[in-house]
Amino acid sequence: MTRCPYEELSLAFGDAAVPYLYGSGCTPALADAIVDRLAAGPGGVDAVLLVADAGVRGPAAVVAAELGRNVRVATVPLQPEERHKTLPTVQHLLETAVAEGLTRRSAIVAMGGGTVGNIAGLAAALLFRGTRLVHLPTTPVAAFDATVSLKQGVNLSAGKNLAGTYFVPALIACDLAWLATVPRHDLLTGLAEMVKNVLVAAPELEKKLVVALDGVPADLRALLEVGVEAKAPFVAADPRERGGALIFEYGHTAGHAIEFVSGGAIRHGEAVAWGMLIAAEVARRRHGLSAEDVAMHHRLIAHLDLPDAAGRLRGLDRGAIRAALAADNKRGYGPCAPGEVLMVLLDGIGRPLPGPAGGPPLVPVPVSVVMDALEAL
Amino acid sequence: MTRCPYEELSLAFGDAAVPYLYGSGCTPALADAIVDRLAAGPGGVDAVLLVADAGVRGPAAVVAAELGRNVRVATVPLQPEERHKTLPTVQHLLETAVAEGLTRRSAIVAMGGGTVGNIAGLAAALLFRGTRLVHLPTTPVAAFDATVSLKQGVNLSAGKNLAGTYFVPALIACDLAWLATVPRHDLLTGLAEMVKNVLVAAPELEKKLVVALDGVPADLRALLEVGVEAKAPFVAADPRERGGALIFEYGHTAGHAIEFVSGGAIRHGEAVAWGMLIAAEVARRRHGLSAEDVAMHHRLIAHLDLPDAAGRLRGLDRGAIRAALAADNKRGYGPCAPGEVLMVLLDGIGRPLPGPAGGPPLVPVPVSVVMDALEAL
Repeated sequence: MTRCPYEELSLAFGDAAVPYLYGSGCTPALADAIVDRLAAGPGGVDAVLLVADAGVRGPAAVVAAELGRNVRVATVPLQPEERHKTLPTVQHLLETAVAEGLTRRSAIVAMGGGTVGNIAGLAAALLFRGTRLVHLPTTPVAAFDATVSLKQGVNLSAGKNLAGTYFVPALIACDLAWLATVPRHDLLTGLAEMVKNVLVAAPELEKKLVVALDGVPADLRALLEVGVEAKAPFVAADPRERGGALIFEYGHTAGHAIEFVSGGAIRHGEAVAWGMLIAAEVARRRHGLSAEDVAMHHRLIAHLDLPDAAGRLRGLDRGAIRAALAADNKRGYGPCAPGEVLMVLLDGIGRPLPGPAGGPPLVPVPVSVVMDALEAL
Repeated sequence: MTRCPYEELSLAFGDAAVPYLYGSGCTPALADAIVDRLAAGPGGVDAVLLVADAGVRGPAAVVAAELGRNVRVATVPLQPEERHKTLPTVQHLLETAVAEGLTRRSAIVAMGGGTVGNIAGLAAALLFRGTRLVHLPTTPVAAFDATVSLKQGVNLSAGKNLAGTYFVPALIACDLAWLATVPRHDLLTGLAEMVKNVLVAAPELEKKLVVALDGVPADLRALLEVGVEAKAPFVAADPRERGGALIFEYGHTAGHAIEFVSGGAIRHGEAVAWGMLIAAEVARRRHGLSAEDVAMHHRLIAHLDLPDAAGRLRGLDRGAIRAALAADNKRGYGPCAPGEVLMVLLDGIGRPLPGPAGGPPLVPVPVSVVMDALEAL
């Protein structure tokens, strides 16, 4: 049987190189490649736990069947909701893995969006103190952003992503046809991270991004390449994202707080978009970001077809947003007084402000200033 | 104020070097040194969460007071029981840390035995994807063995230490006076790991160990040095303990199963002692370990003043032991058929058997053979 070809990128994280296989309508070929590469590791591969996002049952069943031709597969479904992104869900995966007979020669395959990738990724990092992990991203955030990062994490009651670890996947594979099943609106929302990459690190890719955004859902391949291209040099040099790569936290300070307080009703991509507009307004007021550069934020985000910001944020509890900002997980990366929060800010497109004293590029901002900027949207 | 001096070892784990400070009756000097060294890190230190074994309330209160002279300290007590060595306990520590205002500039100080060190160590590894960790071991297992390892882990329902990670502590400090509060019987039990080190890797230290064991509780300093000396070269070369350093799993296959099935009533050290006798009997039957070498196992273990093995093991459910062996967390380190378990075995004192095909030094053994050896004790 002839199988359609796939292409391959290599993502560098410090000394580690992770293959990223992608193509369109090539699930059988990708499944074969996954088993082949796992089998080539020392000890081979004896079983796979497929952690499958409940939102992609159809494609997950195909993947399970294709993998199952060459290796024992157990499937565990997972609801891709923020409220399930917890240690108890990780424990459920770990208990299931052991009950299904996984060993150190097995692998966990995480198929779904960023939430499922994070939960299953943390489970892989913890099972037997580290079991091979394969990401099969099925959303734009997962495919173009979350997998280009080693960060795995879950929420605590005080905020998002406060508990986690860094873990290098063995392999990433994406059939772009999976993404085409995502409604156009959701796809575009998810591409907020790509807008972020261009604003913070790769202004030269603006035109390519706009063309690709306007071509969604046809031109996913171009988006993958733009996403990886913009971010890759930074994570290669700073795989733990505690130095220069922290610029990709742009929009995530207010964004995480909004997403968390909305209980996930405002999805990650949309929340990051509002977070970037808030960061731009903060930078305009305090660090002289030009009105033109603020306008470029609005112009690029307009390509995402989002609803009106003020209307979306109106119903969110302001006290809860302040509390979530105060618990932001960037606290402690640098000096930050009580009542302040650390943010990535720009003083121009592609020009993140340096942090104090040569530290990471994070600037302390009073929470009240962030709240004022939010109210000004 | 004059403060008594402490001494310093350096433990190598791959490229990382971890200072190990120790002395007798020198808690104030150690507390000062801890804060000094944390403060010298980038960003300094803004707070400490002291995770304190409920078994050492007195010394923990002294440590909290001494640390508190120079840094903000919050204390959380922890029951040092196997049934609490779980992800929900880790979650409790993480939630407490965030509620107490810890940031990335903070540290977790784990004071207690190996159980508390493991739980707090995993919490430190996960908090903000990694927060500095200080070990203050107060039991012989913790002081002479567990801290000379990067392994942090908790139990799952199917077995011990199935979930965890590797994490490099910032610092280890031990006031040997803490250990002197442990009853002599418990101290000796905990020194089973030292017997293991001599049997598996350092037969030349036998005499030094016997003298030190007979001098307990006076000669703890010698034991610390013997413990570190025997194990250090192996963990330096193999910090993740997935290769040559797996020999220190000697006695831990049957030992973990016994400890787990006893619900912790048989403590780790005693369980490892029985595990070594079982491993010696397996090796005698299947790999020609000499009767003389088996006798040396019994002779060294006799210095630990343990009760009678057969009597201790009589009440344990045999089916549960088989099940725990089948879920052993070394599965998958090498080839292992259903009904077999991977063990470290010796064909002479200080001579671990190599694994198949140049893999780690683990030998597959039918569970029935392990059970027969257990019944023969």
